[in-house]
Amino acid sequence: MLQTIGSLSTPFDTLSKCPRNGRQLRPAPLCHAQVDAAYQPGLAGLEGFSHLILLYWLDQSGSTDLVFTPPFERGLGAAPRGVFASRAPWRPNPIGVSVVAFEGFDGPGRLRVRYLDCVSGTPLLDIKPYLVTTDCEPEATMGWLEPHATCS
Amino acid sequence: MLQTIGSLSTPFDTLSKCPRNGRQLRPAPLCHAQVDAAYQPGLAGLEGFSHLILLYWLDQSGSTDLVFTPPFERGLGAAPRGVFASRAPWRPNPIGVSVVAFEGFDGPGRLRVRYLDCVSGTPLLDIKPYLVTTDCEPEATMGWLEPHATCS
Repeated sequence: MLQTIGSLSTPFDTLSKCPRNGRQLRPAPLCHAQVDAAYQPGLAGLEGFSHLILLYWLDQSGSTDLVFTPPFERGLGAAPRGVFASRAPWRPNPIGVSVVAFEGFDGPGRLRVRYLDCVSGTPLLDIKPYLVTTDCEPEATMGWLEPHATCS
Repeated sequence: MLQTIGSLSTPFDTLSKCPRNGRQLRPAPLCHAQVDAAYQPGLAGLEGFSHLILLYWLDQSGSTDLVFTPPFERGLGAAPRGVFASRAPWRPNPIGVSVVAFEGFDGPGRLRVRYLDCVSGTPLLDIKPYLVTTDCEPEATMGWLEPHATCS
């Protein structure tokens, strides 16, 4: 059973205002992850990590769509894409994963972060430290998404 | 409500045999992610991605422990660490996240992957393409975990 540990604040108050990804806007706007008081002891030792992985529940994702044509491929005759080959939110388990820059605290349990792309108020599920030793793959190839990259 | 979309096969059949992370063993052993038939249409277009992000349910993680002393710091007088500053499994939402190398399919819905560290049989929740444009932070700093890195 999932527990909400807090919520995310972003400048995007409706789905239609969300960017395609959190690095698309430059400069990336300041966002916040607010951790509920009961879970704040779990933040001990977070200082010193420059980046975090946030997991959150995409509660406005709607119903699952296993195969779809992305907006930026419509009318191009491209093959439909599987949802597991995309970061689209309409997944069997609509859990969002974002690598964010972490800039310290603005109050108890209130994390300053950048690079979120979700709608404000999205429920927070987990915070993990980003580890360059296991999470960083600079040579990774991006398959069908390669020509659609929004930043490099 | 979470749905299990498949399961993970690793060489680690008990928790005590799991490495600290999936890049600790060299060479990294072959593992598999088996996606259930009902969800296999969602894999369309996965070819061409060299790395994936797998999300899975750490069903043997036990109860939540918000603050703890890691095994490799015991007896050293170090401050206890918050679970959100670690990748330990005893989290409020025990969702594991691994960046894995993807080497194609060994059968319908059967993905060849490397760098998993979980126990064999772990329920699979999601597969996402790893995007170097949003998931890769080569300059990231690792806070208190810096001196404990198992690979670089």
